[in-house]
Amino acid sequence: MISRLIEKIVEKKAPVVVGLDPGLKFIPTHLMKEAVEKKGDTLEAAADAVLSFNKAIVDAVSDLIPAVKPQIAMYEQFGLPGLSAYKETVDYCHEKGLIVIADVKRGDIGSTSESYAIAHLGEIKVGDASCRPFDADFATVNPYLGTDGVKPFIDVCNRNDRGIFVLVKTSNPSSGEFQDQLIAGEGMSEDAEELSRLEGAEGMNVTGRPLFELVADKVREWGLDSMDGAYSNVGAVVGATYPGQGEAARKLMPHTYILVPGYGAQGGKASDLRAFFNKDGLGAIVNSSRGIIAAYTKEPYSSRFDEFTFAEASREAVKDMIKDINAVL
Amino acid sequence: MISRLIEKIVEKKAPVVVGLDPGLKFIPTHLMKEAVEKKGDTLEAAADAVLSFNKAIVDAVSDLIPAVKPQIAMYEQFGLPGLSAYKETVDYCHEKGLIVIADVKRGDIGSTSESYAIAHLGEIKVGDASCRPFDADFATVNPYLGTDGVKPFIDVCNRNDRGIFVLVKTSNPSSGEFQDQLIAGEGMSEDAEELSRLEGAEGMNVTGRPLFELVADKVREWGLDSMDGAYSNVGAVVGATYPGQGEAARKLMPHTYILVPGYGAQGGKASDLRAFFNKDGLGAIVNSSRGIIAAYTKEPYSSRFDEFTFAEASREAVKDMIKDINAVL
Repeated sequence: MISRLIEKIVEKKAPVVVGLDPGLKFIPTHLMKEAVEKKGDTLEAAADAVLSFNKAIVDAVSDLIPAVKPQIAMYEQFGLPGLSAYKETVDYCHEKGLIVIADVKRGDIGSTSESYAIAHLGEIKVGDASCRPFDADFATVNPYLGTDGVKPFIDVCNRNDRGIFVLVKTSNPSSGEFQDQLIAGEGMSEDAEELSRLEGAEGMNVTGRPLFELVADKVREWGLDSMDGAYSNVGAVVGATYPGQGEAARKLMPHTYILVPGYGAQGGKASDLRAFFNKDGLGAIVNSSRGIIAAYTKEPYSSRFDEFTFAEASREAVKDMIKDINAVL
Repeated sequence: MISRLIEKIVEKKAPVVVGLDPGLKFIPTHLMKEAVEKKGDTLEAAADAVLSFNKAIVDAVSDLIPAVKPQIAMYEQFGLPGLSAYKETVDYCHEKGLIVIADVKRGDIGSTSESYAIAHLGEIKVGDASCRPFDADFATVNPYLGTDGVKPFIDVCNRNDRGIFVLVKTSNPSSGEFQDQLIAGEGMSEDAEELSRLEGAEGMNVTGRPLFELVADKVREWGLDSMDGAYSNVGAVVGATYPGQGEAARKLMPHTYILVPGYGAQGGKASDLRAFFNKDGLGAIVNSSRGIIAAYTKEPYSSRFDEFTFAEASREAVKDMIKDINAVL
């Protein structure tokens, strides 16, 4: 599956994924009003508005990008109708030829992880029929439970030609609380040494490698049996907001595709992104969610677009993002 | 909410939760056949069978126990019909007076974590209406993303009198891969020293506290603003399969309720559980899933019960579990 994603990235010249995270506050009033007129003040109405919003954006940008990343929490918050809109979004994006990265951040153990993997990437037999519950192409996975938690995802991926992106270093301000903790007795990589020098930790007599590097080692290892061309179907998530750690992660996982959140609204700049890519210009795909889907609410787009032309604003924002990123590659 | 759970634990004399994790292989053939006759080889049929199975077990055990813990992955694998059966299970358990711990292991950042929290524990406004999407009482949460990821859950809990259990040390064999890594520069607790002596790590010249202890510290800290009587609405998950770490966690988080998976089918014994409880006989609630819901498939129950009397087997297994645990308290 990673080879299909790469093919599309190369074809569109766009290492870019659009995050479909439709919080209610981004949905234009007229879409919400239409939905409420039909279905009242209900979760069904909210879900309908979300779906209309998504479809308009996908219609406007699908020729420019290889992939979308719906954030399932934004649908789960509307209960069953929301998850129905999630599934319709996935299917609609597939119809439009897009790769779908399900941002589900699932993770459990053994047969439970397997069930999550089946739900989002696999198929399940009921009697003589094979059903594909949510049927995305990639899913994000949380590594806190270790190999037991991740392996069942990989097995399902290998059976179904799908992929995962494992959280290594997340883009949020407190991601370092656990992910940057230095592990005692682990030789420090040059990058980590450099990082600790930059951060002034040098004199603290603390040595070790940060936890996220150990996770990166595991991701590389887990991915060895899932190679699909030059890269593995087992990818990693590393936030654009941490370019130093991105560089370290890039070196530790040469054959791992990195999904990079945190560009744009969260503060990651294009100049920070170079480190996430390999010399072949591949190896990373950068996500923007709010920066694209809510472009019409913010400059430089809000003066030219409004809530009736939100999808065109998203198209402009995608074009600008692709230009911005390609300029540094 | 934790005070309500404790009240029920004391009333039933049962620090026990039944995990409703209905994998298809545990569903009696006649239930599946009935469902398939009505709905064909479809996800709807699988979901119907799951719901019938759950209701029969809940009917058989609800007077004995304070709480249930549905594992959402087991429903998510049947797509939308499965999640509909999940919601009906939650509602049915509430009708029967049970506390519902949603084993969802969600975790993300900022507004995304807030959306998950709203989905499972909170309410969302659509127009003038307030809707409660899945409406459980507790949810399990993954801490890998740090405070940013957990705080939004706590805020939603505080607004809605709900609670969470944060993964600290999970019950699976590879949980130590990351959770037991020793953090450099962190003073080792006495328990960790004892543990490393037991594990023969003493001579390795590695000092530091294991990661799960840092997570435990955070859980204690996060819980301070969510006290509900003697305990906090912010609980922890620590596996029965690691009694040494359970003892350490118990000491580090005196006001934290511990949800203990891993008893029974996963290998945790009653004698291992003492360490998870406080001297007041409270502080922990022990889960069994397969051991209860699939009791009819295994001795000592399989010779007395069959797939038509599976619910009675579950009732016997719950009684035995309560006796087994109370004997060591």
